[in-house]
Amino acid sequence: MARLVQYEEAPPEVRAVYDEIKAARNIPDVNNFWKALAVHPPTLCRTRDSLREVMGPGVLDPLTKEMLSLAVSTANGCAYCMASHTAAARAKGMTEEMRGELLAIVAMAAETNRLADAYDVSIDPAYRDPG
Amino acid sequence: MARLVQYEEAPPEVRAVYDEIKAARNIPDVNNFWKALAVHPPTLCRTRDSLREVMGPGVLDPLTKEMLSLAVSTANGCAYCMASHTAAARAKGMTEEMRGELLAIVAMAAETNRLADAYDVSIDPAYRDPG
Amino acid sequence: MARLVQYEEAPPEVRAVYDEIKAARNIPDVNNFWKALAVHPPTLCRTRDSLREVMGPGVLDPLTKEMLSLAVSTANGCAYCMASHTAAARAKGMTEEMRGELLAIVAMAAETNRLADAYDVSIDPAYRDPG
Amino acid sequence: MARLVQYEEAPPEVRAVYDEIKAARNIPDVNNFWKALAVHPPTLCRTRDSLREVMGPGVLDPLTKEMLSLAVSTANGCAYCMASHTAAARAKGMTEEMRGELLAIVAMAAETNRLADAYDVSIDPAYRDPG
Amino acid sequence: MARLVQYEEAPPEVRAVYDEIKAARNIPDVNNFWKALAVHPPTLCRTRDSLREVMGPGVLDPLTKEMLSLAVSTANGCAYCMASHTAAARAKGMTEEMRGELLAIVAMAAETNRLADAYDVSIDPAYRDPG
Amino acid sequence: MARLVQYEEAPPEVRAVYDEIKAARNIPDVNNFWKALAVHPPTLCRTRDSLREVMGPGVLDPLTKEMLSLAVSTANGCAYCMASHTAAARAKGMTEEMRGELLAIVAMAAETNRLADAYDVSIDPAYRDPG
Repeated sequence: MARLVQYEEAPPEVRAVYDEIKAARNIPDVNNFWKALAVHPPTLCRTRDSLREVMGPGVLDPLTKEMLSLAVSTANGCAYCMASHTAAARAKGMTEEMRGELLAIVAMAAETNRLADAYDVSIDPAYRDPG
Repeated sequence: MARLVQYEEAPPEVRAVYDEIKAARNIPDVNNFWKALAVHPPTLCRTRDSLREVMGPGVLDPLTKEMLSLAVSTANGCAYCMASHTAAARAKGMTEEMRGELLAIVAMAAETNRLADAYDVSIDPAYRDPG
Repeated sequence: MARLVQYEEAPPEVRAVYDEIKAARNIPDVNNFWKALAVHPPTLCRTRDSLREVMGPGVLDPLTKEMLSLAVSTANGCAYCMASHTAAARAKGMTEEMRGELLAIVAMAAETNRLADAYDVSIDPAYRDPG
Repeated sequence: MARLVQYEEAPPEVRAVYDEIKAARNIPDVNNFWKALAVHPPTLCRTRDSLREVMGPGVLDPLTKEMLSLAVSTANGCAYCMASHTAAARAKGMTEEMRGELLAIVAMAAETNRLADAYDVSIDPAYRDPG
Repeated sequence: MARLVQYEEAPPEVRAVYDEIKAARNIPDVNNFWKALAVHPPTLCRTRDSLREVMGPGVLDPLTKEMLSLAVSTANGCAYCMASHTAAARAKGMTEEMRGELLAIVAMAAETNRLADAYDVSIDPAYRDPG
Repeated sequence: MARLVQYEEAPPEVRAVYDEIKAARNIPDVNNFWKALAVHPPTLCRTRDSLREVMGPGVLDPLTKEMLSLAVSTANGCAYCMASHTAAARAKGMTEEMRGELLAIVAMAAETNRLADAYDVSIDPAYRDPG
């Protein structure tokens, strides 16, 4: 189990990140992911910056972004990430029926990915990037 | 490279699947994925049935379903599937900007998935499934 | 593409391994896998020893061993290994129908593996190792 | 941990699947995998249908099919699936010696898969699918 | 194959990144990885920033950092990344003998990782993070 | 959880391996990995031999070898292996700052690996192996 850096013991640069996350999400404490990354402050700061940019406003809506994160975390088999992205997606409107369909897609893609690789299917000319 | 079963050489059960896919998508020929699966007709039929159910009408819209498939195929590193799902998602409205955000999410999730696993982050009580 | 160490340019220790493989399998030349490993002779020798032990006579018959290797190589997405183990399994008796069933199992397992992980299924008491 | 849908609380379509599985396998209750999938009945039904077809009678014998499933689940790192397929394979006749050889093959294939990829070995002409 | 954004057609923000990379590494042109990322400028900029921080001066020396990147890229099966990190590591001093040992470690770890997972080995108390 | 073969119940060939490991590392008992492999003595012996060769004296120093093993085990998501290689690397001199940089590299490589695959970046001519 990860060592978690609590606010009280955190150095100022880590406290600043915690304060910022708490303010942005209006939550009383940051989740364990951030407390674990804080053992290496450069990773904490860089990951916070990257996620803020990637998951922030863009052409994809917040729920779609969260569901994509959940799908990828499931494909990668990360238990913590599946739990946290499921919670975040539910908070943004994912119903149980939507979750059911999402996980069915992740699982079916795993199956068709293996079949396409196994049969060494050559890419149809129409699918090639015009590049 | 896969052996591809062309319509002319296909047995009746395979032709029936090809005919159905061509009619449903209004295309002149099925793509290589189906021609490769046709070397084992039970796999062709079962995969067609499963995909029709999973990718068909539901609570998630068709573009979101296609983007989820693309995200998972990217996470799984299947070159054929990335190409075919990119084409299908574009046909359903995915712009280059949307693709850029989608791939950024897939890549960032790969990074945070590894960090969560590496630091062995324990799941926050609030994230646990009420089960 | 890998640098391949041909017999003529190989040092004596590599030639000895090549000679042994050719004699054991009664083939005129070793395949590319061995010629690629020969750039690091300790890896060539160790891999040859390990494979000889693992794939050699045991309680599982040679065809089953080859099909297991093919299934794992497919799950791991190794194109070279899929090609070489398919050829080897065919040489030991795998028919196209058997290959079709094998690949269907690999693909279905990929799907059910994702579902079991995604739904975080707890292991049934009856399945726990008596340890 | 997954929410498990018990028989008593299950809707009729789910009960029908449970009843059928119990009858087919002559067991008093279905295992946790099915109870977890039941949160999304379409996935429960589709997975049951697919597994019945893929794992049912064919040219490969039941034990070989189960061992292939175990090998793939091990390659994919699915803890639940390793436990359930180990139990199922033992019930079909897998001895501890057979399990030892199977896992040695899975592990060796993981090693040789990485070596073939790392050295970018080109596929021998003799291994190419006649296509 | 990726669409590559050449300097001549690149927007100012992309040219600025290209100029900076060329100056920092004293090379006449950026490699294909950067030209491919340039189709989505935010990803280009963020990736450049993150890599500069992660691969820049720290407590690990540059060659060790490059070899770690090569090892991970091999474990993840990324052909482009294996090629580019092999070249970069050689430029920083990796000999063929060092490469041979590195790849042997990657492959052996793949094997022992599978064995540890397959046998579900419980973590020794002495290995638990003091947390 | 794995069945662990304790010294008292072990057959002579297993005891000999345990004795040898204990003597080589000057430790009172072998760790759980070895006790788990002992259920299949040929795997125990072969893995011990292979690790002794791969992790033994060579052109890479022991700490670098251990850190490479930790990086690969993290990329492969093996919890036991991450714990044991972290402990072993610390024993050989890995500081917390070094661990932080190592894990940042593993995570960034996961991200850039996905981007290179997703954008299907063609290998720069300069990176091609002279073969």
